[in-house]
Order: sequence, then structure tokens, then C-alpha cells
Amino acid sequence: MRLSRYFLPVLKETPAEAQIVSHRYMLRAGMIKQASAGIYSWLPLGYRVLRKIEDIIHDEQQRAGHIPLLMPTLQSADLWRESGRYEAYGEEMLRITDRHDRDMLYTPTAEELITDIFRANVSSYKDLPLTLYQIQWKFRDEIRPRFGVMRGREFYMKDGYNFDLTKEDALHAYNRHLVSYLRTYERMGLQAIPMRADSGPIGGDDTHEFLVLAETGESEVFYDSEITDLKFGDREIDYDSHEQCRAVLEEFTSRYARTDETHDEALFNQVPEERRRTARGIEVGQIFYFGTKYSEPMGATVSDGEGNQVPVHMGSHGIGVSRLLGAIIEASHDDKGIIWPEGVTPFHCGIVNLKSGDEAADAACDKIYAALRALGLDPLYDDTNDRAGAKFATMDLIGLPWRITVGPRGLKNGVVELTSRRTGESEELPPEEAVAKVAKIYGVAQG
Amino acid sequence: MRLSRYFLPVLKETPAEAQIVSHRYMLRAGMIKQASAGIYSWLPLGYRVLRKIEDIIHDEQQRAGHIPLLMPTLQSADLWRESGRYEAYGEEMLRITDRHDRDMLYTPTAEELITDIFRANVSSYKDLPLTLYQIQWKFRDEIRPRFGVMRGREFYMKDGYNFDLTKEDALHAYNRHLVSYLRTYERMGLQAIPMRADSGPIGGDDTHEFLVLAETGESEVFYDSEITDLKFGDREIDYDSHEQCRAVLEEFTSRYARTDETHDEALFNQVPEERRRTARGIEVGQIFYFGTKYSEPMGATVSDGEGNQVPVHMGSHGIGVSRLLGAIIEASHDDKGIIWPEGVTPFHCGIVNLKSGDEAADAACDKIYAALRALGLDPLYDDTNDRAGAKFATMDLIGLPWRITVGPRGLKNGVVELTSRRTGESEELPPEEAVAKVAKIYGVAQG
Repeated sequence: MRLSRYFLPVLKETPAEAQIVSHRYMLRAGMIKQASAGIYSWLPLGYRVLRKIEDIIHDEQQRAGHIPLLMPTLQSADLWRESGRYEAYGEEMLRITDRHDRDMLYTPTAEELITDIFRANVSSYKDLPLTLYQIQWKFRDEIRPRFGVMRGREFYMKDGYNFDLTKEDALHAYNRHLVSYLRTYERMGLQAIPMRADSGPIGGDDTHEFLVLAETGESEVFYDSEITDLKFGDREIDYDSHEQCRAVLEEFTSRYARTDETHDEALFNQVPEERRRTARGIEVGQIFYFGTKYSEPMGATVSDGEGNQVPVHMGSHGIGVSRLLGAIIEASHDDKGIIWPEGVTPFHCGIVNLKSGDEAADAACDKIYAALRALGLDPLYDDTNDRAGAKFATMDLIGLPWRITVGPRGLKNGVVELTSRRTGESEELPPEEAVAKVAKIYGVAQG
Repeated sequence: MRLSRYFLPVLKETPAEAQIVSHRYMLRAGMIKQASAGIYSWLPLGYRVLRKIEDIIHDEQQRAGHIPLLMPTLQSADLWRESGRYEAYGEEMLRITDRHDRDMLYTPTAEELITDIFRANVSSYKDLPLTLYQIQWKFRDEIRPRFGVMRGREFYMKDGYNFDLTKEDALHAYNRHLVSYLRTYERMGLQAIPMRADSGPIGGDDTHEFLVLAETGESEVFYDSEITDLKFGDREIDYDSHEQCRAVLEEFTSRYARTDETHDEALFNQVPEERRRTARGIEVGQIFYFGTKYSEPMGATVSDGEGNQVPVHMGSHGIGVSRLLGAIIEASHDDKGIIWPEGVTPFHCGIVNLKSGDEAADAACDKIYAALRALGLDPLYDDTNDRAGAKFATMDLIGLPWRITVGPRGLKNGVVELTSRRTGESEELPPEEAVAKVAKIYGVAQG
């Protein structure tokens, strides 16, 4: 993308209403604009990151064998009366009346609707196991929305639901989700630690939250420092294997790690003192096993192959998609702006033309731009007439992990500059080598 | 995808509530399930097609230089009061009150919000031309929702907005949209004819609707038969060229083609009698030029480089994304089911194992399945124990354009069968040639 043709409304001033760094940078970098309290428009740069995150989640969910579908944002209140949640849910549920005076709501979660889809279409254990998921907009009428997309009212969420014949199978689904979530967050450059959690209004027997450590986190967390050494990495996993998934769960949950909600001082004190840590964390996902809580009242049963109709065992598993943008920025920034991990960066690389209008500089930039695009990469080429300082400041603010700087002086020596946003380190090298290096970083093959 | 691991709840019976063929087939093929009146869940098969259509639209919009963003589904009523539309819009607007008693609405369209984004961020003619678009859920509280996704209440729509300094530039944006829409529909296997239209509640000076001819269309249309011979095809277009885009507009709109709303009998009678046609059509898109209708009252002005602040010239341009699924099915089906055009098919090819459990048949199917996937194609492999007739009926119903049938008898002769859903024609050929032929149809290179 050429910046002269893009819509990147960066702000010079720090908006007064933004209290935390991710909110400030998302506004300043032209990623979001508030439409009304707790409701945001995703401007082009923000939308790009949102899609990148969404793509990673789809990819990892489908790798785990989960099947995407899409449920509507507005639902009838009837189903929620069936489960008993219509009255139980507090004022955070946005209740709506349509022109025929029917009670509706903007869905904050979809256990009822997915259970209805299941019971209408599945009747035999032979169709299990089954995990369906969606990535869809949700609404939660927060009394005091704040922190930008971190606690907004209209938010984007992945919610998945497993249906299994037995508790054992459902716990495998739970473990499988844990594994797929670990992979998902790592691909986004995040370390998200599974912590034992309370189940809250959804209800459940077994549940873990995933927390990203960050100073601005809403939760206080207590953990054994050994847990931050764990990495899923690129190990192979057979998602059908109960043993393999359980082993990962055990590896990642056997050390102490809890939020203030479930913190147990006595247990924590059994961790050797030098490994005891307290910090703050941002919740970016949660997995639940809740058994037959919805299947029983709603009649979601299957034949078990032995003549019985049994309610299915279920769980629900969520990732806060829009909130993840905030979490990633909280975990990865400096005083100049955002530092995107390569996995979610809106553009793979920036190209800064130090002297737009200079024939050699323009030609070299065009060539680098074309070469990167031919490799399937998306560079953002600042081809405007701004002065160099302003161009650098914008690139630092929007946080592209790599920048190629092109100027007449360097070109006389046959070189451009490749700079890492994270380390600030630069090296001079010929344009084609800069392209090759960026290609290698993103794992794309050169022809 | 292996069918044994997928969620494809096909129905044997025709649902009584479905009056038109697309609605019937979408329900029977397990593509959608009604959640409440005029509101649908998109089951996995339907969701796949929805995403395919969305991808084509994104691709063609960005080819034309338009920039994606995303606006929220719920908006504050304040902006709509500014434009005067909050009161003017009828009962089809779903009005909502939040917990703080603030007036909100589920957006049926986004002229106000995009104009607000523009005026907050753009102040100079140098930042023009600019076209922003989104693909987002909308709501229209239809008094009698019907015809499935064709006239639903919650619907998925691409809406784009151009901002230009002059009327001439804005008309170029209009023409550019017309070209990109022609390309978009053709890639979906649709012929959509631009017809002069009324502007309706959005208001506008210049507007065309795109109509797909189909017996069940809501509009009566009148046209010169020469228009159906026009095809955009794979010609090159420079979207920056006013002349090229205008020439396409003239080519595609100079012959008579109007809906009943703007039909002019006297003009129509000037078409030679043998070329006069009347038919029914489904509206799948619309482009508008409306000048300064929103920019003036909302103060969306730019400096024109000569010391003046002038309101920008705008237009809005929509494609009914969810409705397109219905339109495609109305235009492309037979009495056995849907016939997907290759561009939007949920799976590229079906594989039917005539005798699951037979060692040779299973091995051959696995090999074909793996070979197609290695080429980046998505086959749907029916690996279940159903009898052959049921497997064929399902494949015909869900409408995959190509089917590879594998059985022990054919394999003894070294062949499988490749069948076209559209023509019903089959040919016997070795498995690797069947794979090569499917690869060629979809234009993917074999390694």
C-alpha cells in the first residue's frame, strides 16, 4: 500500500480520554475512532490487525478440527427464557423490542442458540464429537465502558462449543481447546498463561482463563515463575489423542497460577519463595467445561448406542478478539509507539523514502515495493512529501516490525537501511538483500 | 473436509415455510437455520459460501483502490439526528435504548457515521480521492420478512462511500464502482444488469441497481435483449482512468434496462420489438451519487487549494452479501438441488466413496483427497457408510460443481468417474487425471 493512497489519520496529540497506553496508541495511530461510548469504528489500520488476528484464530481452530459457522447478533428472548438466563442476566444484556413488540437481545454469548442448533439436527452419538465455533460481534452493556477496545460494549469474540457423549470426551475437548489456544496466542507473539478461574454467570465445573502479563491488567495474578519458561513452540500435536492433549494441559497447569478471584495463599506459599511472583494480567480467553447445564434443560440429547437418550456434555471456549489488539499493545510497545509482533502486524514492512521526488530514491522504493509485493508481502510505502522525521515518527507509532529506509546518499553507495522496530538496530545493505532478509523473516520463498 | 467429521445437517423433507427455491434449498442443504423471524444462523456450509462471496468482494474492491474498514452495528441516534434521518426513517429502523436511556439504533446503512469519520480526519483536497468501504451486518426491521436470506432482517452488506473534491471526480468514483461491481458479479458466475433506479430514502441524483434475472425476482424488469450479450470478461482496466471507466459505464448502460419503478413505456417502445424483453429480477447491488447531501449538513468540507472550504461530493455503493447466496441459487439450480458456480462453491469438488470400508476404494479416495488438498483445493470427501444413492443425492443437493466417484469396480480398470453437476456428464479416467482436470478447472498449478 502506498501511503498517499491510504487512509491513516494519525494524531499528533494524545487524546485526553485515553487512560492506558493501548487506547492512546490505537487512537493516535488511526486504528480506531470512538463512535459512541464503548463502541468503536475500526479504521483501516486497526481493521487490518483485527483480520490478521481473526485469520490466526480460524486457522488454529480448524487445525484442531473445529467447524466454523456464524450465528446472528440479535436473538429472540424465547431461547434465553428456556435456559433461565433471560431474567438471570443483569443489565449488561442489551434488551431490545422489535416493531412487533417481540423481546429480543443483542447476544453476549451463544450457549442457548448453539444448543438449539444442535438439538434440531443431531440425534446420535455417531455424530459426536462435534465442536462448532464462530467469530462474531457481541454486546455487553457495560455501565462504565473504558480502556478503549479492552472493555468496550460492542466487541468481537470467538466463541466455540463442544458437544460430546461423555464427560471424558468433553474433557478431551477442553484440553484440545487449551492446546489450540496456546498455539493461537503464541502465533500472535503473546504469552498467555492458563490460570484456574471462577466460572461466573456462564456456570461451569472446570474453567481456565488465559492471562497476558501487563502492568495495566485488570486482574492481580499470582504465579510460579517457572510457568513463564513454558512454550508450546512448534511441537507436533495429534488433536485426536486424549493423552497428548492431556499431557499439554498438565504441563501448562501444574504450576501455581491464579488470579485474585481464586488465589489461595496457603497453596501459593508452597511455591519456593524465590519463584513466587505477583503481577497484573489481562484476560484474553477462557475455556469452560459445564457438562449438561444447557443440554439437560433444553433437551439436547443423543442416543448412546445402547438404547438410551442421554444429554450431551458441553463446554464453551472464548477468545476476546477485539480486546486482543489492546492486550498485544499493552504487552508490546515503547514510548514511541506500538511494536507489532510479526504474526499480527498490519503491514509486514515499512518503506520510507527520505526524498520523494528524487529520481533514484523513487525508483529504488518502487522496486523494493514491487519486489516485496511479488513475494506476497504487504509493505506500507511512505511515498508522501513529509519530512524524514515525520515519516520515522509515524512508522514508529504504527509499529511495523521492520522498516527499509531509502535515500539518495545511501543509494550512491548501493545501500538502503533495514531497521528493527523492536531493537532499533539498523544495518546497511543492498536493496535486494534487504528484500531477501524481510522475506526470510516472514518465511516466504523467493522465486 | 471429511464428511464424517463435518456438520452438514441436510433435510429430507422440504420445509413448509419456504416459498422460493433458494430458501428451500438453503434449508435442505443445511446452509442456514432460522433463529427467529427473518434472522438466520449460517451453518457451516452456508458460512463457507458467505465467506467466498465476501472474499471476492474484498478482492475486487481493493483492486479498485477502495480501502476496507469496519463500523459498529450499533450507533448512537445523535448522528442520525444531525442528518435528519432519525425521524425520517420509518419503522424499519430498529431503535434501541441502552441502560443509560440513550437512544441507539442497529445500523441499516452508514452514511452518517462514515461522514463523521471523514470530517474528523480529512481537511484537504490533497487527501482525496478517497473511497472507504466495509462488509458488516445490518438490520432492517421488515414487517414481513420472507424468502429466507433474500429479505431477512439481519443481513450482511458491503457498503462503500466515496469522497471527492468535484462532481466530476465523484462521477468517476461512481463509474469505477460500476466496473468493479460488474467484475465482482461475474466472478460469482452471475450476470447482474445495471438498471437506472429510483433513489429511495437514501436520496441521490444518479443511481443504478444491479439485477439478476430470475423468475422469483421481486421486480419486474424491461430491457433490450442486447444487454444480456455484454460481458466484462477478463479485459484490463485502469481504475484511475476516467475515460476507461466511463466507457464501460456507457457500454453497459446505453441500452434500455429498467425496473418497473423507473420504466418508461415510450422509451422502451423505441427498442426494436424483437429485442424487447420483460422478465423478473433480483436486486443484488446499487450505486448512488448524491453529491453534498450529507457533507453539507454535517460539515464534511475540505480546503480546495484555492483558499475555500468546500463540501465534498459523495456517493454510496452497496452489495447485498447475504442476499447474493439466494440470488445465485435462484439463478443456478435444477430439481435436484443447487448448482454452484466455481467461483463461490463451498467445496471445489466432492469425492464419493461408493464402498467405504473397501480397502482399494478407501485408499484411492484418501489419495485423491490428499492430492487435491496438496494443491490448495478443498474437497468434501463423503467417507460415511451411507448407500451410494444417498451420497449422490446429498452431493446433488449441496451443488458442488464437480464430483469424483470412486468404486471397487472402476478401480479394477484403473479409473474413477468425474461428473459435472451442471451438465450431468461423466467421464471415466485414471484418478491422477481426474485430480489434474479439477486442478485445471480451478486454475491451480500442479507441482
